[in-house]
Amino acid sequence: MKDTDELQINYKGSPCYRIALTHDYSRLLDYISKTGRTYSRICIVSDSNVSELYLDAVKDTLCHAASLVTQFVFRAGEASKNLDVVEDLYEFLIKSHFDRHDLLVALGGGVVGDLCGFTAATYLRGIDFIQMPTSLLSMVDSSIGGKTGVDFRAFKNMVGAFYMPRLVYMNLSVLESLPADQLASGMGEVIKHGLIADKAYLNFLIDKRQKIRSFDPDAMLTVVKRSCQIKGRVVETDPKEQSIRATLNFGHTIGHAVEKLSDFSLSHGQCVALGMNAASYLSMKKGYISSDDYRMILDLISSYDLPLSVPADRYDAEKILATTKSDKKMACGHIRFILLKEIGEAMIDTGLTDQDLLTAIDQILK
Amino acid sequence: MKDTDELQINYKGSPCYRIALTHDYSRLLDYISKTGRTYSRICIVSDSNVSELYLDAVKDTLCHAASLVTQFVFRAGEASKNLDVVEDLYEFLIKSHFDRHDLLVALGGGVVGDLCGFTAATYLRGIDFIQMPTSLLSMVDSSIGGKTGVDFRAFKNMVGAFYMPRLVYMNLSVLESLPADQLASGMGEVIKHGLIADKAYLNFLIDKRQKIRSFDPDAMLTVVKRSCQIKGRVVETDPKEQSIRATLNFGHTIGHAVEKLSDFSLSHGQCVALGMNAASYLSMKKGYISSDDYRMILDLISSYDLPLSVPADRYDAEKILATTKSDKKMACGHIRFILLKEIGEAMIDTGLTDQDLLTAIDQILK
Repeated sequence: MKDTDELQINYKGSPCYRIALTHDYSRLLDYISKTGRTYSRICIVSDSNVSELYLDAVKDTLCHAASLVTQFVFRAGEASKNLDVVEDLYEFLIKSHFDRHDLLVALGGGVVGDLCGFTAATYLRGIDFIQMPTSLLSMVDSSIGGKTGVDFRAFKNMVGAFYMPRLVYMNLSVLESLPADQLASGMGEVIKHGLIADKAYLNFLIDKRQKIRSFDPDAMLTVVKRSCQIKGRVVETDPKEQSIRATLNFGHTIGHAVEKLSDFSLSHGQCVALGMNAASYLSMKKGYISSDDYRMILDLISSYDLPLSVPADRYDAEKILATTKSDKKMACGHIRFILLKEIGEAMIDTGLTDQDLLTAIDQILK
Repeated sequence: MKDTDELQINYKGSPCYRIALTHDYSRLLDYISKTGRTYSRICIVSDSNVSELYLDAVKDTLCHAASLVTQFVFRAGEASKNLDVVEDLYEFLIKSHFDRHDLLVALGGGVVGDLCGFTAATYLRGIDFIQMPTSLLSMVDSSIGGKTGVDFRAFKNMVGAFYMPRLVYMNLSVLESLPADQLASGMGEVIKHGLIADKAYLNFLIDKRQKIRSFDPDAMLTVVKRSCQIKGRVVETDPKEQSIRATLNFGHTIGHAVEKLSDFSLSHGQCVALGMNAASYLSMKKGYISSDDYRMILDLISSYDLPLSVPADRYDAEKILATTKSDKKMACGHIRFILLKEIGEAMIDTGLTDQDLLTAIDQILK
């Protein structure tokens, strides 16, 4: 494995931030100095699980970059991703005298990145932050592209901001300690990237399944790098999801509805897998992909321990439809549904009927 | 008075939004259609005072632009500018099924604009909003430049975002119903604009004092337009206050401290006037402006019923200094203090000592 790989994300044609793909924390200070910014105070934001594993190592490194390095650790889990915890973090920063020239570091998975990113976007009208994702899902998806957000009261993900990190720094060696279900959850997005954008990558995921499942470093570097490239290219073109960025929602429209109705007992990756089954089925029914393509997709999803269906006696098709329609992926009252035009290319369809969607939903109820 | 005047604010060299200076609401639909956007739902955000006066007229007009026009009215006053009211507005929007293609309209003064703008910046990661300022202070200052923000818990203005409106629409005829103290509060910023950027404008404010104080329409149009031009030019050059935008803080560094210590019993304009006295005195002491210049500034401030001092037995110089230093206008521990280089030109000074600041503060304690 090469010592360091890096990607560059541009914004409106100008270099915006680097993604460093490394296997330890030894290059962190180099990459911070490459941003051209210096900081006197740094706050590492993490959760109770991740901080046990990596906080000391990251803090020992960052101590050489700023005179104050402090941490804000909250209880691990989706339930913490809300405005109350953001307010606690605001208050912590105020009492630690953080000003707009200081830095937040998000050390953790998607919840940490979302919460820390939203706080960075809104504290003193925006301060710098760095993403240090520690799960496969956050490496290949949520740490790239500047979407941040939290829940408030009973409402999921309604509050947020588009806000770019100064740097995304990944230590891929942390993947080796991931439990198997966390790998699967990340693989939902990875398979999606192949399906919507890169047939060769999809074949790689089929061929190297054993290596990926055993966290082979070279295979994982290829996966994370290629997924970051694909997502990065899309968000560069359409940072605020006016058009093509919507294709990243392949599998998410119905997937999010099932995730909601499961009360988040199913993981994001599992729900994306279900949604990809439904959307691929519809792509086949509309004549875009063949039945062989569809079968290949189902086999691939299954081979990474992701589900193809949920019990029909526990989920109701009409309820999934209604939840899908109340989700925010609507454009002026029409669902913007993502289909596969072919393997490796996605398209936006705003003309699907309720009956189309119900046919697709039926595929995931067994 | 001309029927309509307009200004254009650019962002990174591209047209960003228009400022329409009108004397009624008859051009509102035209200006919305000039944005090139259409909306199916509009929510007018206003406070209990302003809504009594103008909500019906604005709503009657906007009804022709969208199928749903609704309103969210909160209790007038600074105390409402907090995250709790933002959450109430989020919830109202969710329950009214607002999606990211809908529109918020801020109808009111600075509190309404700040709260509505912050909500627009963070609801579904950002939806469109229009500023319709109804006070002189919000017309010449807060509605321009994209600063939004609210208080939370006991902390003032620590939470916010830079977020541009789609349009600023001003009906200047509403100024005629303003109470005198509201005129004075707006004139603090107006005088500041002359001092930091335009000597000819300052002379206009001296010469036309009687006309401005009696809300002569032509004089008010000149005032609002010129102040918007000055502020607009600065925020175009430096939208996120990396450099020159800081000059808009002339009079605000010490002014904000006094505002805080008065528990907001003094108006923003009054505190800016006090801060301008202190900063002008220091500009004279440092040899930038003459004693005649300083005297002219004091006369001008007084002539618009703004204060030059507060009682020395109620305010403590050391406390004002400490509060000034804890404010967020710090760069890496140094106060970025704004001085006048000459009448009509400001400069940033980061080298002032505590003793310099105390000398300036003493000028406003009598």
